[in-house]
Amino acid sequence: MADVFKIAQHAKEASIKMLQLSSDIKNQVLLKIADELELNKDKIFLANNSDLKKAEINLKENKISNALYNRLKLDENKFKDMVKGVRDIVKLDDPVNKILWQKYIADGIMLKKVSCPIGVIGIIFEARPDVISQITSLAIKSSNAVILKGGSEAEETNLAIFNIINNALNSFNNFPKNTVSLIFSRDDVKEMLNLDNLIDLIIPRGSNNLVKYIKENTKIPVLGHSDGICHIYIDEFADCNKALNIIIDAKCQYPSACNSVETVLINKKIAKTILEPLLKKLKDNHVIINSDSEIKSLYPDYISNIVADWHKEYSEKEISIKFSNNTEEAINHINTFGSGHTDCIITENKENAEKFMTFVDSAGVYHNISTRFADGFRYGFGAEVGISTNKTHARGPVGLEGLTIYKYKLIGTGDIVSDFVSGKRKFL
Amino acid sequence: MADVFKIAQHAKEASIKMLQLSSDIKNQVLLKIADELELNKDKIFLANNSDLKKAEINLKENKISNALYNRLKLDENKFKDMVKGVRDIVKLDDPVNKILWQKYIADGIMLKKVSCPIGVIGIIFEARPDVISQITSLAIKSSNAVILKGGSEAEETNLAIFNIINNALNSFNNFPKNTVSLIFSRDDVKEMLNLDNLIDLIIPRGSNNLVKYIKENTKIPVLGHSDGICHIYIDEFADCNKALNIIIDAKCQYPSACNSVETVLINKKIAKTILEPLLKKLKDNHVIINSDSEIKSLYPDYISNIVADWHKEYSEKEISIKFSNNTEEAINHINTFGSGHTDCIITENKENAEKFMTFVDSAGVYHNISTRFADGFRYGFGAEVGISTNKTHARGPVGLEGLTIYKYKLIGTGDIVSDFVSGKRKFL
Repeated sequence: MADVFKIAQHAKEASIKMLQLSSDIKNQVLLKIADELELNKDKIFLANNSDLKKAEINLKENKISNALYNRLKLDENKFKDMVKGVRDIVKLDDPVNKILWQKYIADGIMLKKVSCPIGVIGIIFEARPDVISQITSLAIKSSNAVILKGGSEAEETNLAIFNIINNALNSFNNFPKNTVSLIFSRDDVKEMLNLDNLIDLIIPRGSNNLVKYIKENTKIPVLGHSDGICHIYIDEFADCNKALNIIIDAKCQYPSACNSVETVLINKKIAKTILEPLLKKLKDNHVIINSDSEIKSLYPDYISNIVADWHKEYSEKEISIKFSNNTEEAINHINTFGSGHTDCIITENKENAEKFMTFVDSAGVYHNISTRFADGFRYGFGAEVGISTNKTHARGPVGLEGLTIYKYKLIGTGDIVSDFVSGKRKFL
Repeated sequence: MADVFKIAQHAKEASIKMLQLSSDIKNQVLLKIADELELNKDKIFLANNSDLKKAEINLKENKISNALYNRLKLDENKFKDMVKGVRDIVKLDDPVNKILWQKYIADGIMLKKVSCPIGVIGIIFEARPDVISQITSLAIKSSNAVILKGGSEAEETNLAIFNIINNALNSFNNFPKNTVSLIFSRDDVKEMLNLDNLIDLIIPRGSNNLVKYIKENTKIPVLGHSDGICHIYIDEFADCNKALNIIIDAKCQYPSACNSVETVLINKKIAKTILEPLLKKLKDNHVIINSDSEIKSLYPDYISNIVADWHKEYSEKEISIKFSNNTEEAINHINTFGSGHTDCIITENKENAEKFMTFVDSAGVYHNISTRFADGFRYGFGAEVGISTNKTHARGPVGLEGLTIYKYKLIGTGDIVSDFVSGKRKFL
């Protein structure tokens, strides 16, 4: 077990030193990390093989899923993307020390709102070895210190990558020490969650249960997404071809992604035209279909089960289908059973599209486009920390900006409030 | 005890309806509230008198402080300011439905980042009757539903003002019902803190203990300030006149304010010039002075006590004074013992000022100006929800913008991710 308190203390000290890092040194460090990852590729694959051997045993004993095994497995392409990911972050604008605005609040008193790092961020992530370099690079670029806890299945790979990153960091004399730390066990995480005086933000990337557990056990602000229960509503004025293409893409292109669709709502007025082709196309794509009792009674051969829980994330090739009488009813269903992630309306009617996008209270509200576009890279942020369903700080795909906050700088020449209270001086 | 669950459910429903409110209707409602407050002035003062009578008994029995009694007491000026405060919010820009940016992410795919309300906000505030109309007006202007819990000492005044506001709201057929609710007891608050599915943000305005209690007892994000332990550091290159004026203003102009100064750090190299005049001036202003042992041994007659706890908010005419060998030491002291609220350097040396403002990790970093300027009105925000020492969402004085978040609107024409993965289409 790591000495998490000491790690967090050192991270806090590092975070203060990071407040003055130039863009230049940060970019140099990132390029060095990318180079060192390439130079030490063999070490990383060796560690990954070791993790995979353990995982194979767990796989045979059904202790882990095939999906997890695949995420864990590093290959040439993933490795290339991983290194490229670090180099891509070099190209992004430095998100800190930006003057967001400045103005004189009174004669000779200048107020500046300046972006700055959050401080120390604790990040808990799943068993994807490519995540550690990405998250670390984002933290460095935004001048935050990070404490990382990776999935236990990727422990050796994570440690190998962490050591390479740390060696790269330590090769710079003018870069603070202890900016990146790794912790290992659940007990470590538990201890980290108590350190609200040292840690400023926790970002869990993982299951709903993990996010829920963390929110219940810390006073530190948590930036995480809960479920990804995404909806597509086929309006009465939908273009049926668009609807079919989008739904198949949103369900089948990558079913385990959080932005894949779970529930399709169909306006009754268009049911005759769209329902049968949709059921057929889903079946052709090997999607298990569940529905409300009405659709089940109309198409019993297509429907596996009547849906008991509309707040369900399948993360598999399985889907829920339901009738809706109108846009309002669809909006209401989504706001009641959705998770505020990403929801889409298919329609050629602008008014209904506007209504849907105004009243659906989700991070992403889409019109005639697959929910799978909800992603930091696709939004053009260059990289992504995760997708937030929070209603504060950052919502939707979170890029570098989500790792920053701001401070106010006020510059005067001996000014006192008494002069303003007495009326001797006035604010502008 | 109120049925808090039902109240929160209704508030949630109201918050969805509020998503489409025009600036015009919101401003009409605010003007109506201001008018009705004026028309019902007698009712408000009657209720306030009743609260004051109870408070007088508690005051005699030392159950409440003089300061609380004074805050509770409404007078003509406070009432005027209260009504003016509501009308002032009409003049502010509508903070929601603003397109923060928009761009094409691919040919024909438009992404818009649009500001929107947070949803349902629970606000717990102290026994100042002028706060309820201010907070309600800010919530309305930002299209948020609010659940309010005022200080129990102001219960009758709050109820009177709440009823007047609610009547004003209900006189508009096109304004949603249940946008503003009042709860009463500590048990109500306790229940509210459990409703993380219905309430999106809690804003406590009150003591540190209250804020701490709330953070410990809810999964809902909390926007609150902890202590206001503000520092002034007198650098070796300080202009002594500026230093004296600013320190007296920052300590004496309103000692119970969170932005008043608690600790003065003095560079040893300037001690001979500044220390005695400072001690004298503080004494002349009836400030109790505590210090480190070194200053105490030099000026025993001026110093009451040796400071045992440097993380102390006096909120009275009492102050801590300490020697510092250089700017780094001062920064380090502030980052260790401060509360991240507002801290100031007095110096004519630009380099030291820059260093101080970069490395002091506080919401406000000041140069040659009184810490008492840390205030939403003085910053030109038009109104203030409170001052946040959070490192996420909103930091420092929080205006209307702090009550908003954003959603992403993505508008396509049948676009699917498969086309981009296959390379058929490309992101811009």
